[in-house]
Amino acid sequence: MSTEKSSPIGLHRVVSPKGVLPQAAEVVDPHAPLTDDEVRISVERLNLDAASFRQLYEAHDGDGDAVRQAVLEIVGRRGKMQNPVTGSGGMLIGTVDAVGPDSPLGLKPGQPVATLVSLTLTPLVITDELRQWDGQSEQVPCQGHAILFARSIAAVLPEDMPSDMSLAVMDVCGAPAMTARLVEQLTASTGTAPSVVVLGAAGKSGSLSIAAARAAGASRTVGVVRDNTEADALNSAGIADTTAVADATDAVAVSTIVHEKLGAPADLTVVCVDAPGCEHGAILATRDGGAVIFFSMATSFSQAALGAEGLAADVHMVIGNGYTPNHAEYALDLLRRERGIRELFTQRLLSESA
Amino acid sequence: MSTEKSSPIGLHRVVSPKGVLPQAAEVVDPHAPLTDDEVRISVERLNLDAASFRQLYEAHDGDGDAVRQAVLEIVGRRGKMQNPVTGSGGMLIGTVDAVGPDSPLGLKPGQPVATLVSLTLTPLVITDELRQWDGQSEQVPCQGHAILFARSIAAVLPEDMPSDMSLAVMDVCGAPAMTARLVEQLTASTGTAPSVVVLGAAGKSGSLSIAAARAAGASRTVGVVRDNTEADALNSAGIADTTAVADATDAVAVSTIVHEKLGAPADLTVVCVDAPGCEHGAILATRDGGAVIFFSMATSFSQAALGAEGLAADVHMVIGNGYTPNHAEYALDLLRRERGIRELFTQRLLSESA
Repeated sequence: MSTEKSSPIGLHRVVSPKGVLPQAAEVVDPHAPLTDDEVRISVERLNLDAASFRQLYEAHDGDGDAVRQAVLEIVGRRGKMQNPVTGSGGMLIGTVDAVGPDSPLGLKPGQPVATLVSLTLTPLVITDELRQWDGQSEQVPCQGHAILFARSIAAVLPEDMPSDMSLAVMDVCGAPAMTARLVEQLTASTGTAPSVVVLGAAGKSGSLSIAAARAAGASRTVGVVRDNTEADALNSAGIADTTAVADATDAVAVSTIVHEKLGAPADLTVVCVDAPGCEHGAILATRDGGAVIFFSMATSFSQAALGAEGLAADVHMVIGNGYTPNHAEYALDLLRRERGIRELFTQRLLSESA
Repeated sequence: MSTEKSSPIGLHRVVSPKGVLPQAAEVVDPHAPLTDDEVRISVERLNLDAASFRQLYEAHDGDGDAVRQAVLEIVGRRGKMQNPVTGSGGMLIGTVDAVGPDSPLGLKPGQPVATLVSLTLTPLVITDELRQWDGQSEQVPCQGHAILFARSIAAVLPEDMPSDMSLAVMDVCGAPAMTARLVEQLTASTGTAPSVVVLGAAGKSGSLSIAAARAAGASRTVGVVRDNTEADALNSAGIADTTAVADATDAVAVSTIVHEKLGAPADLTVVCVDAPGCEHGAILATRDGGAVIFFSMATSFSQAALGAEGLAADVHMVIGNGYTPNHAEYALDLLRRERGIRELFTQRLLSESA
């Protein structure tokens, strides 16, 4: 093990351009010896980001061999799995292989883990030519190794649930932790428990967020979903006080139904709909002095900023942060406590694998 | 005056598509009679959004007559000045012409005002064919009328400063008001006055924001600027405790210089640099548990969200809202109190008109 001084955010592994962060780098070095605060993971599976896999699959007309060669080429050239077209990565699971003596991550060799930082900044070597992957799915069986920095994040996979369910939870675990924190902050600053509306409440991040809002003490929760099928699923899960059906991109419909259900605009609105155009509805559904958290990557910064200005809406708008301390443990615990969320996740995983 | 029931956000003037907000509408109706909660403005000048004017100017190879015809065509067809390519608008100044008896805006006929909501949602009629405009500048002398809704925002132009300076201040007045509010909230929630870093501190929104941070009780303010010329200007203005020179898009450089100047990362970082790529530097310059406000329209939502996750940064990220109650009065008062800001604005207006 090297005693070389290393950067907690991985600057020492950036090859080009010099001086940028690993995520912005064209090439990182996954081969240099492990430093004292790094961890090496023996990789078992990559979960490619959905947008990245779709781009590769379409660019190669669904030819699995060509898709596999493309991933091998990217990782071989860049030292990380960052799709140059979409800019996105994914996550991986594996087993802890070696732990530097100064690593603050608290991992032990032999533990099964998932990385919660993106593959876009994770140094990666593939050693099996991806022979077990047919190039037809974003789930990539893989042998090789990956490097975690001191400020990376990895979660130990729990033994009491299937790994695909753990991964599905970890993929969105920033949302419930942050929702709970905002509910607590609003309660502390106003002296009253807030009402919470979640747009997209039957989805993965949405169901965890609405359960988190209730667990954190929300006075009332409204789950907005797109159709009656989702409404039935959310009602069966029993995690929302009220369910409402509306098109989240229809600002007038969203705000009208929220006013109807709450008798007033919401104190906190959480956007978990993975589609563009939900900014204005969320703003209009929220009271002056209230807050909106945007978790969807389809959120447009300028639509949110200009929308609030155009509506003269004094709303505190927050960019959902994928990282909050202990977010994975918090989300996994919610799943353990709430049978309804487990059922939603089980249905979703079954329909995805069908 | 009609007694027709009207919508405070202007839904009654949307022609197509039906049911969307005025900003999202293809066509709004500027000709319908004034309703009881609306205000009619007699227009004197449009200030086109810079991106919108540039697009029109380039599309017509700098031919002023063609640019003028293009603006007339847009306003004639859409009932508002929203550039269909850039989606952006601008603002206008004029005189209050008529005030509905139920208008909550507090305006009186004859007052000189600037609209602080975007032209993208303001019903507008042009009656002079823009004869006084050469199509060569975003400042458009104009006769006609515009409609303000109950939830629109307009500010009375103060008598104690030139209108171009008032407009320049009002254009960015959301930033200082929101910075001051965040400083007060952080002080209240932690019991300690926060340190504040402003990226782009010599610009219009930046200089007002750093002065607002100090006025709101920041423990220490650091203004980051791009070169020595800006550093000299900021030092002469005397509104920042410390000045530092760094490229705001160089994440490592920004965080290094902030750590140097403060001995620690910032409690609050305010991004006022109108260029893409400033997200990671702002995040890395901010302490865990601290906050970042993004005021630049060049901010990328996904760069911010994924950047924080990739850096395992527990930072509260806020979308700068162009509207906070009394934001225009607050910013104008800062300008009156701080000779240094007045000088920065004067220099900037001189260089723009040169």
